Amino acid sequence: MENLPSLTVPTREVPIPSTVSPELQKQIAAPIPPMVAMPTTAEGWKALQKEANQVYANMAIAGAQQLGITIETIDLDGVTCYRVSPKSIAPGKENHAILHVHGGAFLFNAGMAAIGEAMLLAQACQTQAISIDYRMPPDYTFPAAPDDVLTVWKALMKNYDPKSVVMGGTSAGAGLIMTTMLRCKQEGIAMPAALFLGTPFADLTKTGDSLYLNAEVDRFLGRYEGRLVESTKLYAGSHDLHDELLSPIYGDLSGFPPAILVSGTRDLLLSTTSRVHRKLRDAGIPADLHVYEGMSHGDYLVAFLAPEAQNVMKEVALFFDRYWQP
Amino acid sequence: MENLPSLTVPTREVPIPSTVSPELQKQIAAPIPPMVAMPTTAEGWKALQKEANQVYANMAIAGAQQLGITIETIDLDGVTCYRVSPKSIAPGKENHAILHVHGGAFLFNAGMAAIGEAMLLAQACQTQAISIDYRMPPDYTFPAAPDDVLTVWKALMKNYDPKSVVMGGTSAGAGLIMTTMLRCKQEGIAMPAALFLGTPFADLTKTGDSLYLNAEVDRFLGRYEGRLVESTKLYAGSHDLHDELLSPIYGDLSGFPPAILVSGTRDLLLSTTSRVHRKLRDAGIPADLHVYEGMSHGDYLVAFLAPEAQNVMKEVALFFDRYWQP
Repeated sequence: MENLPSLTVPTREVPIPSTVSPELQKQIAAPIPPMVAMPTTAEGWKALQKEANQVYANMAIAGAQQLGITIETIDLDGVTCYRVSPKSIAPGKENHAILHVHGGAFLFNAGMAAIGEAMLLAQACQTQAISIDYRMPPDYTFPAAPDDVLTVWKALMKNYDPKSVVMGGTSAGAGLIMTTMLRCKQEGIAMPAALFLGTPFADLTKTGDSLYLNAEVDRFLGRYEGRLVESTKLYAGSHDLHDELLSPIYGDLSGFPPAILVSGTRDLLLSTTSRVHRKLRDAGIPADLHVYEGMSHGDYLVAFLAPEAQNVMKEVALFFDRYWQP
Repeated sequence: MENLPSLTVPTREVPIPSTVSPELQKQIAAPIPPMVAMPTTAEGWKALQKEANQVYANMAIAGAQQLGITIETIDLDGVTCYRVSPKSIAPGKENHAILHVHGGAFLFNAGMAAIGEAMLLAQACQTQAISIDYRMPPDYTFPAAPDDVLTVWKALMKNYDPKSVVMGGTSAGAGLIMTTMLRCKQEGIAMPAALFLGTPFADLTKTGDSLYLNAEVDRFLGRYEGRLVESTKLYAGSHDLHDELLSPIYGDLSGFPPAILVSGTRDLLLSTTSRVHRKLRDAGIPADLHVYEGMSHGDYLVAFLAPEAQNVMKEVALFFDRYWQP
């Protein structure tokens, strides 16, 4: 392998896909985020987090009001969570729940910033979502986040049948869900009925064809260098990034619940998504992959009003409907 | 859309994925095919076809001998076909058949050159495959090829239950299968139990994100310009490329049989594959998408000994097993 040559890909012009919705086209036309210096102090990170989180929290709260979604702050065995209830619950789904684990490179989307995706899931599935406000760096590094997710899962199981609960999240959230499944296996704990793994950040070792092919193409992440590398460092500390609880793609995925995976042609993590899909399939798990034209990493959360984003949520809801039990 | 800017993607170095098999790595290390002048006369095309077809025919015949596969030339209502029988037929699959439609940009793989994929399918599914040697340019242009496929399908239905037959093919073959399904719908003819659509060349209009993103990346096709453009012209003649019988992605796919679709991260037709997947899903068709790390267009046929290629065929066989009936 070391002796095999890399491919030099020449520069190219990539038009905006003509077949996607005007809403997504507008999103695709946004500039690639520039490479910026990352904070070097805890205070610097906290300032950056506060600023970013405020934007998303405001959006989520405004959206909730518009859609008649109720948000309650709850405590589950010491972990703050948000119960997100849509206006109407589908008949038969009164005792169902979507356990939501937010993304944000293990650093962002604390507090109410997390609940945008939980709202989309709750709306599409017409049942409640419970979003975990897990601890993050700089104050709390690995394994604080997966500890919190596992704590909430265990707490929830006191009142729910595991087969009436699904788990879902995007990017780091999907990675944390996979880590939690590995820990459920280790501890012999029941797993949920099904998983939504949106473009999972399940490999922190900078491995994957699309990390190179879609560098400077993915308009949400831009490139692996910078934010992803630095946030990974901050989260993992001195732990080996190949540790399966950090990079769950390297764990044994046999026995995982059925999973739906979502990516896009411009997603920096397209390879990670399809590699997780293959690992699940090779372990005999029912697993569905959906790749959306022109979408960058997690675009369905950014351009959440685009028909394609609604289509993602519709597929997720249909998938869950195949697996959760009353 | 016309006012939205295209993306200028800078040059990059793309390493060979570390997570794929040595066999596939070797394949990925092969150089991108250079842009060459296409023939300008019928004789020129025929010479090119003859040369290419001979290479693949020899490979297929040698492979058949090695694997103990029997190849019979048969005539189905005037169309030459090859019946490809594996050494052993799985119990219960004695009356099953895989109708195989070969790829090759509507120009290549005439004669025995076509049967390599049919052999892989027959081996994986442990049942017979019937591969159609449909007519091609320069002598026979559209709609000769889909006419032949439909003729064979109708001929086969005299002796088979449609639900005991599946159809499969790659690239132009997958496109022709989709065209045939549209014609079955038009004529009210039964459709097969399931489809394998390998990286379907289902859109001849040069539409799709990956046509740009994976230009000079796909080591089988290289780029859309040149061979694909010229062969499409030769095949379609003066017909509108948006005609749904030429570009079946623009047809109404409702009522299609369940389909499994395969592509790769370096596939020039990744977008076409995922767009067809989405159109099938939006029409309510069970449809599974598989994207393989590092694979270019149809790599599972070129690097057919790689574990990943075997994995493709295993997924196809598992998918068919869900749908065909005794």
